[in-house]
Amino acid sequence: MTVSDLTERELIARIQSHLPASPDWIAVGIGDDAAVVKPERNRLEVLTVDALVEDVHFNRRFTPPAAIGHRALAVNLSDLAAMGATPRLALLSMVLPATLALDDFEGIVKGFAATASRYRVHVAGGNLTRSPGPLIVDVTVTGTVKPRRTLTRSGARSGDDIYVSGSLGLGAAGLDVLRTRNGASGTEPCVDRYLYPEPRLRLGSLLARNRAATACMDLSDGLADGLAQVARESGVGMLVDTSLVPIDPAASAWFGGRGKDPLDEVLTAGDDYELLFTARPRSGGRLEPARRHGLAAITRIGVCTGDGRVLLQRPINGTVSEMPLPAGFSHFR
Amino acid sequence: MTVSDLTERELIARIQSHLPASPDWIAVGIGDDAAVVKPERNRLEVLTVDALVEDVHFNRRFTPPAAIGHRALAVNLSDLAAMGATPRLALLSMVLPATLALDDFEGIVKGFAATASRYRVHVAGGNLTRSPGPLIVDVTVTGTVKPRRTLTRSGARSGDDIYVSGSLGLGAAGLDVLRTRNGASGTEPCVDRYLYPEPRLRLGSLLARNRAATACMDLSDGLADGLAQVARESGVGMLVDTSLVPIDPAASAWFGGRGKDPLDEVLTAGDDYELLFTARPRSGGRLEPARRHGLAAITRIGVCTGDGRVLLQRPINGTVSEMPLPAGFSHFR
Repeated sequence: MTVSDLTERELIARIQSHLPASPDWIAVGIGDDAAVVKPERNRLEVLTVDALVEDVHFNRRFTPPAAIGHRALAVNLSDLAAMGATPRLALLSMVLPATLALDDFEGIVKGFAATASRYRVHVAGGNLTRSPGPLIVDVTVTGTVKPRRTLTRSGARSGDDIYVSGSLGLGAAGLDVLRTRNGASGTEPCVDRYLYPEPRLRLGSLLARNRAATACMDLSDGLADGLAQVARESGVGMLVDTSLVPIDPAASAWFGGRGKDPLDEVLTAGDDYELLFTARPRSGGRLEPARRHGLAAITRIGVCTGDGRVLLQRPINGTVSEMPLPAGFSHFR
Repeated sequence: MTVSDLTERELIARIQSHLPASPDWIAVGIGDDAAVVKPERNRLEVLTVDALVEDVHFNRRFTPPAAIGHRALAVNLSDLAAMGATPRLALLSMVLPATLALDDFEGIVKGFAATASRYRVHVAGGNLTRSPGPLIVDVTVTGTVKPRRTLTRSGARSGDDIYVSGSLGLGAAGLDVLRTRNGASGTEPCVDRYLYPEPRLRLGSLLARNRAATACMDLSDGLADGLAQVARESGVGMLVDTSLVPIDPAASAWFGGRGKDPLDEVLTAGDDYELLFTARPRSGGRLEPARRHGLAAITRIGVCTGDGRVLLQRPINGTVSEMPLPAGFSHFR
């Protein structure tokens, strides 16, 4: 049985069957021309949209439907985390091949709904349409943040320390494992990280609340891209000590065993949904709440500088060299 | 030159070059992890998303890039019109084949930007990603409406009159003309209506403001679908006098010449972005402002009834018969 055996209305009913009742701030939810919601008082609103496209962002042969649904929401929540925002609602726009099995459709919806429920995101509406090609899950998420508490990419100043949360490379290793296995089963933890990345919402919220961070973004497109964007938007340079970059040991082992440099992978590969942020020097105390709550490891990897260049200190043949940043992941070139 | 000759950042710069400066209520616009905006005071927020998919909703052979961009926004604005809302911002999510000509990309963006400017919609963000297949333009739009002024599909009561705005069938005729010509040039006005439908924002706003309408939706999926949805959501029946349905004369002529019943086309074909609405009997005076301002013709086509059925009074072989509603346009079956 495929999605084309049902009408659009029946498919919407399947989606609704996996969702909880609407909170009272949703005046009009799924099923009308548009959703109507009450804004939250004394808050700014944060909006983002991100699409997962089959054969670009996931391969259906080795990505379970629940993981497609989870990731479609999680990548958007990661964008909210990077702004210091608290999520509120989602719009779910799906472009579905007529041949998509109904069970897979329901699996995607269940994965999406489970993650939405866990992060208190309410599905207020969406759109369903046919695809003549790939499966696409395009998600809009809105959230809220207190005025003057927004984290942007543009607030870093010369002298600020540069930090990353958690450890890097596990998601990229997971994708590499899946590609290598090409559908065969296995239970590596890095695969789990790739399939089910968790957005750093609590950390982002904490960094925004006590103004611990001066700039922030998520590492969905790799560390090199993150460094370049924050440096450019803030108008600063950066000096990064690559020996400090917290590469996950399992990722190092996997990439090392495949003859790849783990640092190169971490610099250019996406799929890490950790936060990159900057903080004023000697403001380490403001990071204590995040450390104390055990939200994530927080590692200082470098410092913002006054010249415009982003430089990596890398040990090569026993000596430390300063090298310019490699190009990050680019979607179109 | 195709979109794959540029980086994502360069494509975003091309988009920005066609947009006006952000208003001051957009605190963070294009280029960060998410957009940040100030909500409008004392308003409810209205949100909708709709995707245009190549070879499902448009054919690139006979849909100019500017029309793709215009329609992607207009179909969403039509949803806001049906809620009585005033548009505010848009998020533009594009899934682009690597082979898409850069000129066509810019044409789509220009068409989108021109319509956004005309309806005072500000592009606050979006997403660009590659497509392994069709071109897709997925648009999220938000707007605002005063509390207790929202138009929904569920407010019709037995005894209410049923109205449609404007005339019906021209968009469907335009699509049929384009399909018949298969890319050859021509200047039929119905083609223009199909390519550049205008959302009934002022009418929707007026119907909401003075509580003239009890229920409302747009006719993007055809009249039969509209009648069925309002009847079901409102829990009423309907009796429609098909001789009153305002079918556009040019559409009648085109479909008649092709041996098709114009009424059948209007009932089941989408691409009319007129409003279907209901109003209390003897509240015709409240419709006067809309009539007086010449926003659109407003035609009474029937009445809501107490039984659950939607019936069409159709003249067949000289006698008027009551027939149940044909099934509307269904995306998946």
